[in-house]
Formats: sequence, C-alpha cells, structure tokens
Amino acid sequence: MPTIDLNCDLGESFGAYTIGMDDEILPYVTSANIACGFHAGDPSVMKKSVLLCKKYGVQVGAHPGLPDLQGFGRRKMAISPAEAEADVVYQIGALKAFCDAAGVPLHHVKPHGALYNMAAKDPALAAAICRAVQAAAPGAVLLALSGSEMIKAAHTIGLPVASEVFAGRGYQPDGTLVPRGTPGAMVEDEDTAIVRVLQMAKQGTVQANDGSTVTLQADSVCIHGDGPKALAFVQKISTALPAAGVEVRTFTATTSGAT
Amino acid sequence: MPTIDLNCDLGESFGAYTIGMDDEILPYVTSANIACGFHAGDPSVMKKSVLLCKKYGVQVGAHPGLPDLQGFGRRKMAISPAEAEADVVYQIGALKAFCDAAGVPLHHVKPHGALYNMAAKDPALAAAICRAVQAAAPGAVLLALSGSEMIKAAHTIGLPVASEVFAGRGYQPDGTLVPRGTPGAMVEDEDTAIVRVLQMAKQGTVQANDGSTVTLQADSVCIHGDGPKALAFVQKISTALPAAGVEVRTFTATTSGAT
Amino acid sequence: MPTIDLNCDLGESFGAYTIGMDDEILPYVTSANIACGFHAGDPSVMKKSVLLCKKYGVQVGAHPGLPDLQGFGRRKMAISPAEAEADVVYQIGALKAFCDAAGVPLHHVKPHGALYNMAAKDPALAAAICRAVQAAAPGAVLLALSGSEMIKAAHTIGLPVASEVFAGRGYQPDGTLVPRGTPGAMVEDEDTAIVRVLQMAKQGTVQANDGSTVTLQADSVCIHGDGPKALAFVQKISTALPAAGVEVRTFTATTSGAT
Amino acid sequence: MPTIDLNCDLGESFGAYTIGMDDEILPYVTSANIACGFHAGDPSVMKKSVLLCKKYGVQVGAHPGLPDLQGFGRRKMAISPAEAEADVVYQIGALKAFCDAAGVPLHHVKPHGALYNMAAKDPALAAAICRAVQAAAPGAVLLALSGSEMIKAAHTIGLPVASEVFAGRGYQPDGTLVPRGTPGAMVEDEDTAIVRVLQMAKQGTVQANDGSTVTLQADSVCIHGDGPKALAFVQKISTALPAAGVEVRTFTATTSGAT
Repeated sequence: MPTIDLNCDLGESFGAYTIGMDDEILPYVTSANIACGFHAGDPSVMKKSVLLCKKYGVQVGAHPGLPDLQGFGRRKMAISPAEAEADVVYQIGALKAFCDAAGVPLHHVKPHGALYNMAAKDPALAAAICRAVQAAAPGAVLLALSGSEMIKAAHTIGLPVASEVFAGRGYQPDGTLVPRGTPGAMVEDEDTAIVRVLQMAKQGTVQANDGSTVTLQADSVCIHGDGPKALAFVQKISTALPAAGVEVRTFTATTSGAT
Repeated sequence: MPTIDLNCDLGESFGAYTIGMDDEILPYVTSANIACGFHAGDPSVMKKSVLLCKKYGVQVGAHPGLPDLQGFGRRKMAISPAEAEADVVYQIGALKAFCDAAGVPLHHVKPHGALYNMAAKDPALAAAICRAVQAAAPGAVLLALSGSEMIKAAHTIGLPVASEVFAGRGYQPDGTLVPRGTPGAMVEDEDTAIVRVLQMAKQGTVQANDGSTVTLQADSVCIHGDGPKALAFVQKISTALPAAGVEVRTFTATTSGAT
Repeated sequence: MPTIDLNCDLGESFGAYTIGMDDEILPYVTSANIACGFHAGDPSVMKKSVLLCKKYGVQVGAHPGLPDLQGFGRRKMAISPAEAEADVVYQIGALKAFCDAAGVPLHHVKPHGALYNMAAKDPALAAAICRAVQAAAPGAVLLALSGSEMIKAAHTIGLPVASEVFAGRGYQPDGTLVPRGTPGAMVEDEDTAIVRVLQMAKQGTVQANDGSTVTLQADSVCIHGDGPKALAFVQKISTALPAAGVEVRTFTATTSGAT
Repeated sequence: MPTIDLNCDLGESFGAYTIGMDDEILPYVTSANIACGFHAGDPSVMKKSVLLCKKYGVQVGAHPGLPDLQGFGRRKMAISPAEAEADVVYQIGALKAFCDAAGVPLHHVKPHGALYNMAAKDPALAAAICRAVQAAAPGAVLLALSGSEMIKAAHTIGLPVASEVFAGRGYQPDGTLVPRGTPGAMVEDEDTAIVRVLQMAKQGTVQANDGSTVTLQADSVCIHGDGPKALAFVQKISTALPAAGVEVRTFTATTSGAT
C-alpha cells in the first residue's frame, strides 16, 4: 500500500501575536515543521509546539527561516552559504533542545519560505543547508521540494531526504512549480487537488500544465495550517487518501533511499 | 594541589561589530562562556568561537542572556520564570548544535549579565534556569555566583554546579559582592587581587570589607576579555597561580559535589 | 457640557501578524495611540494606521514603548532616563513622519505598557519622557495616567497634558489604580463602568475601593481595541456618554491647562 | 571656483558596539549620513551623532538602510517598493526628531548599502525612496549615486538631488562603477584618487576603465570613516582639494538644479 505524509507548518505565533490553528490542525497531519524564532516563533511557542506534537503523535521537524521576522521569512535575502549554514545549525539546535527536553526525536528539517525557494534553485546554498542538517541533527531527514537542488545536494552527502509535493500547485514539464501569478499556478478545486495527490502517491507522476505526464517523488504533501478553509481541506484529504488506498503515514529516513 | 578555573566571556561580536580579544585571551583561560545570540553573538560568531575553543583546548560553555541586544543583556527585564526557562533552553540548544558539529562537548552554562544577577537573588528564576540547563544540556555544569540562589537551586535538583568568584570585587560578610558604586566594591590593585584568589583557592575564604573572614567556594575566577589591560591581567594571573601552588584547570561535574 | 475623550491603542499589527480590530473600533473613538515599532507595529502598519485615523477624523497619537517586541512592551526593563528619552524621541519622530506625509497633525503622545506604568511612578523617567515629547512633538499633548508622576513632570516643564482614566479598573483612596490581581482591581460590569466614567467626567471624582470619594482629572478614557467584547463596549459607552450629558470629544492642549 | 562636498557615514555604533571614528573624522567632512537604527545605530547613538555634527558645523543627513542589523544592511533583500517607502519614511522621521530637538536642519538623505545599490538600478524602488524623502523631509536633498536611477527618479518628481562619486572606485564607459572583484574596480593609490576627484569636480569627467572620458556630475565624494587609513585619507583630500582650486563645501538644494 502506498503511503504519503501530510506536513504542516506549526508554531508561527510570536509573543502576543497568534498565527495558525495549531491545536485544530494537528490531529490530521503526520508531521509538523516548527518555526525556530528567525522568521516566526519564539522560545515559549517552540516549547508549547513540541509538546503539542508529542500529545498528538505528530513527528517534529525544525522549520528554519531567514532572519526576517517582519517579512515572515518570505523576502529573499542575499545571505552567503556560510551564513545560511550557521543560521540553520543555530535554529535546528534551538528546536532540538526543546525536543530533548520533551523526550521526542527531532524527525526532520524543512527550510521555510524564501530560504526554501532560494535553496531549491541554488546548489551552493542547498549544499550549505544540507551540511547544517547533517551536523546539527544527525539522523534527521531533510524535507525539501521534490526534484530540487536541495534533494540533489542531500544525495551528494548521504543525507536522508524526503520529497515534498504541493496539492494546490501546478507543475511544469520539468517538474518545477508553475510560478505564482502565472496561468495554471494554482489548483483551486479541492477534489482535483486530492486526485492529483493520489496520482502522485500511487504512480509517482503528475499532469504538467502542458498536459504531459511528469515523474516526481512524493513523500509528503504540504498542508496549510491557517484559516477555516485550510482546516476543512486537511480534514477532507486526510480521509480521502486512505479511502482511495493511500496510507497517511510520516516518512522515515529509509524512505529517502527510494528517492 | 588545589585547582581553580579561569573563565572568560567569548563570542560577543555581532555581524559587523566586534567586541573582545577572543584570539588573544583564549590561550590563558581554561573555560569560555560563548554568547548565544540574545544579548550578543550571532550564529557565525558562535561557530567560529566554538572552533576557537577547540583549537586552544578551552572548555565551551553557553552564555545565555536576556533578549536585549541593544542593552547587551545588562538591563534587568521582568521576564517570568517560564519565559526565562524557554529562553535559556533555546540558547543552550543553539550553542550545543555548534558543539555537536565541531565534536566538542558542551561543558557548562553560565547565565549572562542581568540574567545572572537577577537569578542570583531570585529563587524562582534560579530554579527555572537550572531546569533549563538540566533539560537542554544533560551532563553540563552550571557556573554561577558562589553562594547565590543559583547554587542552591542547582543543588535542589541535583544539577552539577561550579561556583564563580571575582578577583577584582570586594565581598561582604555574608559572602555577597559589595555593590558597584559602594566603597570597597572594586579591588583595583592587581597583585592584591591575585593574592585574594590564591586565598580563595587554597583556604576557601576571603577577607570581607569589614575585615572578617568569609568562607566561600571558589571553583572558577571570572576574567574579563576586553582591552589590553584585561589581557595583561590574565597573563599575570595564569602564571602567578601555579607559581604559588594553585593549578589552573577547568572545573568538572564532580568538582561540584564539594560545593 | 462636560466632555471626555475616548482613546484606543492602534496599529499593533506587525508584518504578517495581526492584533486589533482597527477598522471596526475607529468610528467610535476620538483619539488613537499608534504603536511605533518598538513593542508593536511596523512602518507599513504605521502608515496605514495614520491614514485610517485621517479617514475617520480620529486624532493621531504616538504610542512609544519599550524595545521588546516579544514581550509586547509589557515587561519592565531597567532602561535609564537618557535611554528612555532617546527611545521616545526616535519613536515619536518615526510616527510624525507618517503624519507629515498624510497631512495630519501629531496630536498627542501616550507611552505604552510597562513604560507607561514605570513612568507613572518614577519622577526621573517621567521627566525624561516629557522632555522627549516636548522636543520631538512641539505642540502635542502628553496623555498619561491621571494623578501620576507623568502629569507632574509635564506641569513642571509646561508640557500640555491630558489625564487618562480607566473605565474598567478600581481606584485606591490615593487615586492610584488597584493593582491587578488584587480584589477590586477590575470593574467587570459594563454598566457600572459607564456610570463611573460619567461621574469622573461630570464631577471629577470616583469611588475608591474603600468607599471614599477620590478627586481625579478625567480627560480621556482608555478603550481596548481587541476582541468582539471590546467592540461592543466602545459602541455602548460612545452612545451612553452623550445620552447622559457628556460630550465625547478629543482633548486639546488648552484642556490641559485645567488639569 | 568649483566646489565639492565630502560626506561620510556616521553613527554606526549600536548599544555596546562601536564602529567608526566619528569624533576624529568629522572635522574634515562637510556632510554626514547618520544611521537610523535599521542596519546600524540606535536612538542614543543618533542623538549623540546629531549633536556631534552640530558641534563641527557638519550638515546632517539621514542614512536609512534595510532592516538587517546582523548584515549591516549590506545583504540585498527583496523588499517591495511600498515596504521600502514606509521603511525610509520611518527612519527619516526618527532622525529628523533628533535634528528638531537639537535645532539643526535635516539637510539630506542618503540610502545605505544594499538599499543604495538596489535603488541605483531599480526604477520602482528608486521612485519609492524619492517619494519617502519628499514626504518625510521636505526641503532635504537626496544624495545618490551619480547617473543612477535614483537621480532620474528624483528629477521626475522634482526632488532636490546631489550626485555622489567615489574617489577610490573605477568607472565604466557608461558611468557606472566597475563591480567589486573585477579588475579596475578599486583605485588603490591615494594620489591618483585625489587627482581623479579634482577632474570630476573641475571638468565633470572621469577616465573610465577603457581609457575613455566619461561625463558625470560630482556634487559629493564619499569618505570612509573607519580605521586610521581612512582618517589619513580624509585629512589629505580635504587639504589637497582647496590647494588645487576646488572648494570643499556642502551641496545645497540649488546645486541639484545643475545635475
């Protein structure tokens, strides 16, 4: 039986500020990426988020981002690979301490926002992040965009890796995402999105925006965690997948061997 | 032969800003407290600082502080014990990741500045910090003001602890420091300061400002790391102590048993 | 006909984070205190907030706070009067630039959170803040706790001032607020709160928690701006006051002469 | 007699961190660009810097930068024009408040680092910054790279402008700087640099790296303010220019008419 993981971003609140429906979304996902204080999150939120994952049996991942709280880590910054490596080691370590304190493993690392997007295309940045994961979280899996430079860089150094796909995004014939703002960038219809995920999980393929069939590795689907619509979607997809023969289960380090 | 540790603060630079003579001072100390990004330091500086300690065989400690870069962690803030605990776990974890990456142990944790001073007198804050150290850095030693609430709180939960003394400060009959700005607060003469440290290390006592003899535990002496005068002093004391029969050696977890 | 101002905090959102129901609350208040980026707010939010005040004809005030975004400016910090003065000048200037750009006057300055509370009791801090207001916003009115050290410091240097009262808080016989967490600290019943405000506006007195009648100056009532309950209350009080013979109108510099 | 301005960056210290030789360099320049707290500087440093300029009769400029203290504003960030406009208004306003308090005019605005470089090439960003200057500092002059998009954008909206040239940098035939790391990027010899500045000031031309003669507007020369070598150079050039018939005098709004 094919399996797929549902992952969501978690712990994006900061001080008096709240983002996300963490309590509501966690029962439906199998892994969570916890913000580490650079683009979102703070130490108290991180502690709470790890304990929440423990409560729901959800695997804990670190979600390191750019040092840009005001921009929520979504604005590209020209950081050097060496700076990125140190920034990611720092953030992983900070989250790992809360995992250690709670007695849960640090399961994976998924870069956030602009860092994720930049590293998907920049081999030097990708390699730097992979080194950081390997050094700061031995045994943890890198979760990154399917087919990206991140996946390649992880393979190069033998870092366990899982490939992320997007239910609500269009793909190009080369397996990359249709850029936002371009026709075909978004898959708005939820049922269509779910059918696409089923095909990714079962056949390892997706229909590209030119109609061609693209091969891609699908270990985990990114689920948004903010707003009532997001909650409704995760409830729907977490039921629809097993009903159609795809088990919802978190990825493991050995999964990555098949990537 | 009695022993004592010489510790200094390290890694206080930030981005383009430099504080401290890290390279010059390290050959003379046996343990270093590395800033963790809240009151000083940044991820790149932390990485460099851990490697520098490795190079010189100096024990690495985490130096967590208040979230106040502008105030260098020296301004008291009314953070709750729960916030302090999370902030310290976070900072220890961040530094520990660089230790893991470099293959060196995280040897100790010494709170910085206003956090150090507040926790020395506040049992609830002291207990929170001790829990953080125990959770995030199992096996590491807490380095805190001799005779303070921090030491008591560590004993209460069985956290290994080392007691810090100050060569250049006066003591009161109850073993606390003479407050800055008060007559007798500072011991200006370097030779006098060294004689006092020798007495602390050999007899476990110091002359208080009223002339009485106070008992205190002296596991480590705090050495300042900024400025040519500080460098000259550490060179002097690191030679004078062994010449007078006190070995300069870092404290260990078992040392704390005697505290 | 007696008058009173209704003021609310505004522009407390930050980047991707939202706090407050700014659009909903503004039609019911006569002046607003806009966060200036230290404890809350950011430049884009400040610009939007000033324009929103202009749209609704609400007087714009600066709401400077402590440099503590994570603590929302609510944690006391041991900043020196000189630091506070510079921090307040900076924040007032930043907001004033958005006022200048929008063509609206900077009407008043109200310190936020822990800065407000500390300055209410600390004459040196109060004087520093008053100097900052006078230097950075000539002609603007200081809005501060009725009967506090802030009011006294403003009188001393001839700074126009308006006195703030709280509808939902109990008062002590000396005119200070009953500390939170103490019996009588909060006035939970809305109708009672409104009756108390009417008495403050009409007679310049309030019933203290020991039953005695206290004289106090009431130029402005602080209205909370977050949550449906807050919105309902401001709607209620903004109707109830004029119905009972108290005009809701912002304070002016000349008002302060009577304080 | 031709004139030219010597400008330097000022007030780049932050909290306990010091950068720059502000006191030493000021006697030799005619205008200074004061950091505004985003990439460097803090409120207390800004206050001190404005007073220092007043003491030496140096014109005060705002030096707004990207919100990246760790990167000293040197790392490009993908901020939108709207964000840049608000960020610059904010920073100008903050500095202007210290000018108002000190009774000195805010003479000019010069963007810093990556913001300066990005806006030199990006018309939308350049226009946003020009709008910010016009709105927040009416009457102040924009100081920007000679021949850049910033200069064009300022002309478009009628913002007074002064053109900056670099003594120590090579120029390309189109008037842009030879990129760092490319042969001919730097003019290392100080005497050559001074001769080039004289030609720029007197003839309005410079020799490009292909030997051709390029026309450029030279209202102000950027002087570095850090390190003994920088101090020696400013002493040398401030003497050499008048000796060779170029008066060292700050630019004025009317100067820009000739640009």
